[in-house]
Formats: sequence, C-alpha cells, structure tokens
Amino acid sequence: MTIVITAFERSPDGGKGLARDTRVRWALEEAGQPYEVRLVSSRAMKEPAHRALHPFGQIPTYEEGDLVLFETGAIMLHIAERHAGLLPVDSNARARAIAWMFAALNTVEPPILELVTARFLEGDKPWTKERMPLVVDRIHARLKQLSDRLGDAEWLDGAFSAGDLMMASVLLRLKPSGILNEHPNLVAYVARGEARPAYIRAFAAQLAVNAGKPPAG
Amino acid sequence: MTIVITAFERSPDGGKGLARDTRVRWALEEAGQPYEVRLVSSRAMKEPAHRALHPFGQIPTYEEGDLVLFETGAIMLHIAERHAGLLPVDSNARARAIAWMFAALNTVEPPILELVTARFLEGDKPWTKERMPLVVDRIHARLKQLSDRLGDAEWLDGAFSAGDLMMASVLLRLKPSGILNEHPNLVAYVARGEARPAYIRAFAAQLAVNAGKPPAG
Repeated sequence: MTIVITAFERSPDGGKGLARDTRVRWALEEAGQPYEVRLVSSRAMKEPAHRALHPFGQIPTYEEGDLVLFETGAIMLHIAERHAGLLPVDSNARARAIAWMFAALNTVEPPILELVTARFLEGDKPWTKERMPLVVDRIHARLKQLSDRLGDAEWLDGAFSAGDLMMASVLLRLKPSGILNEHPNLVAYVARGEARPAYIRAFAAQLAVNAGKPPAG
Repeated sequence: MTIVITAFERSPDGGKGLARDTRVRWALEEAGQPYEVRLVSSRAMKEPAHRALHPFGQIPTYEEGDLVLFETGAIMLHIAERHAGLLPVDSNARARAIAWMFAALNTVEPPILELVTARFLEGDKPWTKERMPLVVDRIHARLKQLSDRLGDAEWLDGAFSAGDLMMASVLLRLKPSGILNEHPNLVAYVARGEARPAYIRAFAAQLAVNAGKPPAG
C-alpha cells in the first residue's frame, strides 16, 4: 500500500529541515520505504478536511490504506515496528530504544519548545530579553545530562535506532542558535546523524519542496 | 519477575497524584500486574546510582529482571504491549491509541509544562503576572482542539486505552488551576478516568506514601 505523508506547502523554516515531516522522511528512508507527499498550506492545515486527519491541525500525517496516523513519534514507531533498520531485535534493547524516542519528545524537546515560543511568539514582549537566559539555562541543564549519558559513545544505546533518529532531530532544532556548541559530544552526535545517507536523502527531499520559496509567515 | 518502580520519597505535590509514578501505577493496575515501589529522595535522584537508571535524574523508573527503563511513555507502552487492557488488538486501532499517547506527551503536555515553569521557576519574576495570560491562552488553544475531537465520545478512539490513560493524566495536571473548567467535555473525560477502579487504586497507593508528609520543597 502506498504511504502518503503530509508536509508544509511552504515550511516556516524555509527548508532548513526542521519541520517534523523531515523526521518521518528520515525514518522512511532508513526503513527503505517509498512514500508520497501531499503538501498542505498553513491555512488548509486548520480546516476540517485536514483536522479530520490531524486533530491539532499540524503536519505530518501518515496514510497507508485504511490507517490514518498523526504525531511524529507514533508514525515513526509504526514504521520502525514494521521494517528493519530502526529498532533492535532484542526485546529489552528495543524497549530502551523506544525510551529514547520518548525522552527526546517529552524530556529534551519541551525546554527547546519554550525557546521557540520565546523567540517567535514572545519575541516582541518587554520581558523576553531578560527572560531568555533562564530559558537557555534550562536547555543546557538537560543537554548536560544527555551529554553525560552519551559520553564518547557513537549512539545512545548500542546501534543507531529510532531513539537516535528522534533525539538527533530534536537537537537539530538548536543548531541555528549555537546552544549546542557548548556540548561537543552532542555536536558530533548530531553530525553523525546528518551524515547518514537516509538523512541526506530526507533533507534533500524536503529542501526540494521549499527551495526558492519564501518561508511561511 | 518482580516489577519495581521508583517514586518520590516525598512528592512535590504532597500526594495529589500528579507525579509521574501515578501514571505508571495506573497502567500497572489496569493491566492487573503487581509491583513494588522503591522511594527515592530528591537528593538521591540526582546522584550516580539513580542516574544510572534514569539519565535525567527523575522518577519513575521501571525494573523487571534485566530490563531497566525510564520515561513514563516508554514504561507505559512496555506494559501495554505485554498485558491485555491497555491497547486494542486490531493493529490500526492499536497504532491510533499509541498516537494519542504521543499526542498527550508531545502536543498537549508541553504548553502545560510552560505553565508549571512559569509558576514554580519564574513565579517571583517581574514579568510573570503580565506573561501568564499568554501561557494560559496557549493551553486553551490546544484544549479547544482536543475538546473538538473528543466531542461527546467517552474516550478518544473507541474503548479506553493507554492513549486515554496518558491524556487524562496530562489533563489532571490542570485540575488545580481551574483551566480545564472552560472545556466541560474534557472535565467529564478526566472524571471518567478518575472513576476507574485502577486509577482509584493507583491514586490511593501514591497517597499512602505521601499522606502526612510535607510536600518536597
């Protein structure tokens, strides 16, 4: 059955690969699964047809026959469970890889989302300049713990997994800010992710959609 | 094999059931699995012995024979995959239930975490009074979308699942603030969760630990 995902018609990041469709494209490339993309405008995303697929009016969604999924984590797990390449075979190692997916989304990403909120939704507020160092400090506190655990390992728990794919994708959001640079082993970790052929193909595919278009406002 | 989870020796909420061990207790009760609890002080949580189990120095953790897991979402999914009662048998319905788990953790909870941050980490800052309505508005925006999707259904997608357990647990965090009250169908949804015998047992078990102790500072 054909896999169809949705992506921004014009990404807010202008093609830097930080929109969440890149995470799903990357997972599909690691799994060697072809897919089609339906582009959705920011306006159409909030309309009933798209919200029937995604209750929160976002991208990506995933359609495969009768199955409609939303939430990047759920889509990635669905792909990883059905195809080799994203989860270990050993059941304990598999559970730990899934733990890293959740850690990326519920422990590491929330303070990064606060930075995004502070910049883009509160950038013009009088408190933002004074508040920003607190927001950044909270990110560093999490990154320090992650950096301690990674140490000089290549990936978070043995071979590359969906946990690394998700964690590297979350950390990539910090790249433009320079915040990651205080944690050299995390910089190297993200670079290893970006160097994977599957990531390179996923990045190129999203860039092909966005190149030459102005970022969505 | 005996299941051992960790919980706060003294919960910061004084026993309101909002610490994340309650989510895991609830899942174990739904699955009919006995478990033991090891209490950890706020200080010990940050020390190497506990951080070997949980890289971010938090609770809960989950130990079962050789398996050590962290992250509530991963622990809940592990329980749900091995025991009846938390995930549908049909594979598409199962994937959708997992999508609601991720939606609870990565779409609905982040704006709620911003409220927690604003209250407890920035409560004494000069900007917090003026900023708070923005934080609350962002929560309402998400709740409105969730409320629209739930409509007058009992649970989010057919029978009660781990997706509902996680979503109700996330929404429970809002109960003390009164924010949930603008969304009556969500209030009723959370109340249905709280009325489940498994939740009642989980809540009582965490309260037994915390009753009579002052909340952790």
